Amino acid sequence: MRIAVDCMGGDHGPSITLPACKAFLDTHPHAELLLVGLPEAIAPAKGWERVTLVSASEVVAMDDPVEVALRRKKDSSMRVAITQVKPDASGVSGAHACVSAGNTGALMAVARYVLKTIEGIDRPAIASVMPNQKDGYTTILDLGANVDCSAEHLLQFAVMGSALVAAVEGKESPTVGLLNIGEEVIKGNEVIKQAGELLRQAAARGAINFHGNVEGNDIFKGTTDLVVCDGFVGNVALKTAEGLATLFAGVIKQEFTRNVFTKLVAIVALPVLSHFKKRMDHRRYNGAALLGLRGLVFKSHGSADAFSFEQALKRAYDAARHRLLDRVHDRIAATVGSLPGEGVEPDNSQGATGGAVAGSVSAPIGRVA
Amino acid sequence: MRIAVDCMGGDHGPSITLPACKAFLDTHPHAELLLVGLPEAIAPAKGWERVTLVSASEVVAMDDPVEVALRRKKDSSMRVAITQVKPDASGVSGAHACVSAGNTGALMAVARYVLKTIEGIDRPAIASVMPNQKDGYTTILDLGANVDCSAEHLLQFAVMGSALVAAVEGKESPTVGLLNIGEEVIKGNEVIKQAGELLRQAAARGAINFHGNVEGNDIFKGTTDLVVCDGFVGNVALKTAEGLATLFAGVIKQEFTRNVFTKLVAIVALPVLSHFKKRMDHRRYNGAALLGLRGLVFKSHGSADAFSFEQALKRAYDAARHRLLDRVHDRIAATVGSLPGEGVEPDNSQGATGGAVAGSVSAPIGRVA
Repeated sequence: MRIAVDCMGGDHGPSITLPACKAFLDTHPHAELLLVGLPEAIAPAKGWERVTLVSASEVVAMDDPVEVALRRKKDSSMRVAITQVKPDASGVSGAHACVSAGNTGALMAVARYVLKTIEGIDRPAIASVMPNQKDGYTTILDLGANVDCSAEHLLQFAVMGSALVAAVEGKESPTVGLLNIGEEVIKGNEVIKQAGELLRQAAARGAINFHGNVEGNDIFKGTTDLVVCDGFVGNVALKTAEGLATLFAGVIKQEFTRNVFTKLVAIVALPVLSHFKKRMDHRRYNGAALLGLRGLVFKSHGSADAFSFEQALKRAYDAARHRLLDRVHDRIAATVGSLPGEGVEPDNSQGATGGAVAGSVSAPIGRVA
Repeated sequence: MRIAVDCMGGDHGPSITLPACKAFLDTHPHAELLLVGLPEAIAPAKGWERVTLVSASEVVAMDDPVEVALRRKKDSSMRVAITQVKPDASGVSGAHACVSAGNTGALMAVARYVLKTIEGIDRPAIASVMPNQKDGYTTILDLGANVDCSAEHLLQFAVMGSALVAAVEGKESPTVGLLNIGEEVIKGNEVIKQAGELLRQAAARGAINFHGNVEGNDIFKGTTDLVVCDGFVGNVALKTAEGLATLFAGVIKQEFTRNVFTKLVAIVALPVLSHFKKRMDHRRYNGAALLGLRGLVFKSHGSADAFSFEQALKRAYDAARHRLLDRVHDRIAATVGSLPGEGVEPDNSQGATGGAVAGSVSAPIGRVA
């Protein structure tokens, strides 16, 4: 398994990414890394075992507009890293997955441009995990790639997310929840109600394991393995959780440093507090998957430290090792094949295809509802 | 100041609401309460000072559909309590505000039916507070009354929410943030971008103090006094925060009860942990305002205990004491008066009024954009 790493991305660049890569290689004896970056920046990795250095002449800045990343910086480390996972004419690619801590908008745009979306998928989505009360993880998507989603998009997210959970968590039939403001079928706006209907249809045909509607608190209860929502809602949920976690951490610190007595208590409580901190450490959940592309791309938090970036490398490696891309393909094919009025064959002329999709070989999942 | 209390609402009814009312009366010597409920249920309060008992023959159950609460149970304690705040022909009402822990959908529907919305407001919204890093509260609305909001609705929420913060927190010009997935003006879906434009226009005319876009974590940072969003997003944010808070509390408990050593540590750390728990106690934030109605209605959490329900009574009392209803009226009038192409006069024929609003005396805020 080879992973391409954009060593220049993130707030800290090579000072974080290179130590993370070293630590990752030490614990993954079968992994190889393609380290992409400015030659002088990645030079410290020269001579490392199972490492190939790949030069790029440009860097996408964290505040570069998407257009700059896409049109002007064509030899950026981000783009060169992504290009490594693109298969050539014979289907062979330089790497099985790519990891970058670069800016999300640019990464998504460049990845989409270079790799294209999988047949049957309209839009790629960003998926990540949050800890839950069952001592496991809840996977949630989309986290911000798509601000206006149709019911069909939400179905596509459910199918891709199921493939991700199956690949990374080893659950072959993960339960899917539709994020809503109540459990009842009648809750939510029109798009959500339609999505619920599409998800029930897909479940009836065995394409996904649909639990039903879930609410915000179910993410942390672990009611379902996967939670599906549009990118606006998902992003707000993610950042709300981050904000509350920061508030909690700050208040705990304040309380234990309030005076001499509380500081003494903190020393006594240190082992307990450390264990608590470790369990709640958001760095362990770093590494969001960009799903729906013809190649595996993982996004690390821009502010990640070396430990955190290493987790993103691990997630990418695990996903590649468990054939995430094939699994997404297979599940989409199964879903498309099982939906009424649709087929994987381009000459299928039975169903109306909704909007005009001239030139498209097969209608995206759920387009016909 | 008189507050009408639906003593039957919530998961526990009078066993919680009556002790809460007693505690509230003890600390608020100028408050009067109208206790509404089944005669036998509220009988224990007979003889209490500054209390009037009001009989109702029915109770809206926590799982009653809206239709049942609205059409069949016309003498419910919820409805009778709400009716107390409705002014008669001479403008006098039996109570200055009403509090219920009954089911949200029923409460909103009955309140809207009995009280009607304020002129200039299309839809009532639910507003509540969350704690922030500045040791204060961030007010957020809508929390679930409206699942599909237009840009105009979001502007109306901003105006009503500003009045609420001014009344309850004493900040005359509270800062307003528009919940989005990035700070930049170009972020978000079409409705959000339009809302941003309307909010900037309103701010330019001095109607609100608009800060700009905020993200989910800003709620807990306290970046702005008020955060405005549609009810779907707000409800997900609220419940996500509740879910994470529950997870945190559970993990802290687990860590401190893991073994004999950690239990001893917990005893030593008890004062610190108690103080932490007190600061993060969600019961302190109980009492959501239903804004946009011609009367003040406050909603307590259904599972509230006596301490928590008492906080809801306090919030309602403070809002009434600081003339929240007048403030909402005034701010709406100021906003309507200051928006281009609109006037408070029904015969204003200068601006196009957007959609057909035949029979409406004055167009809702923001309708003309």
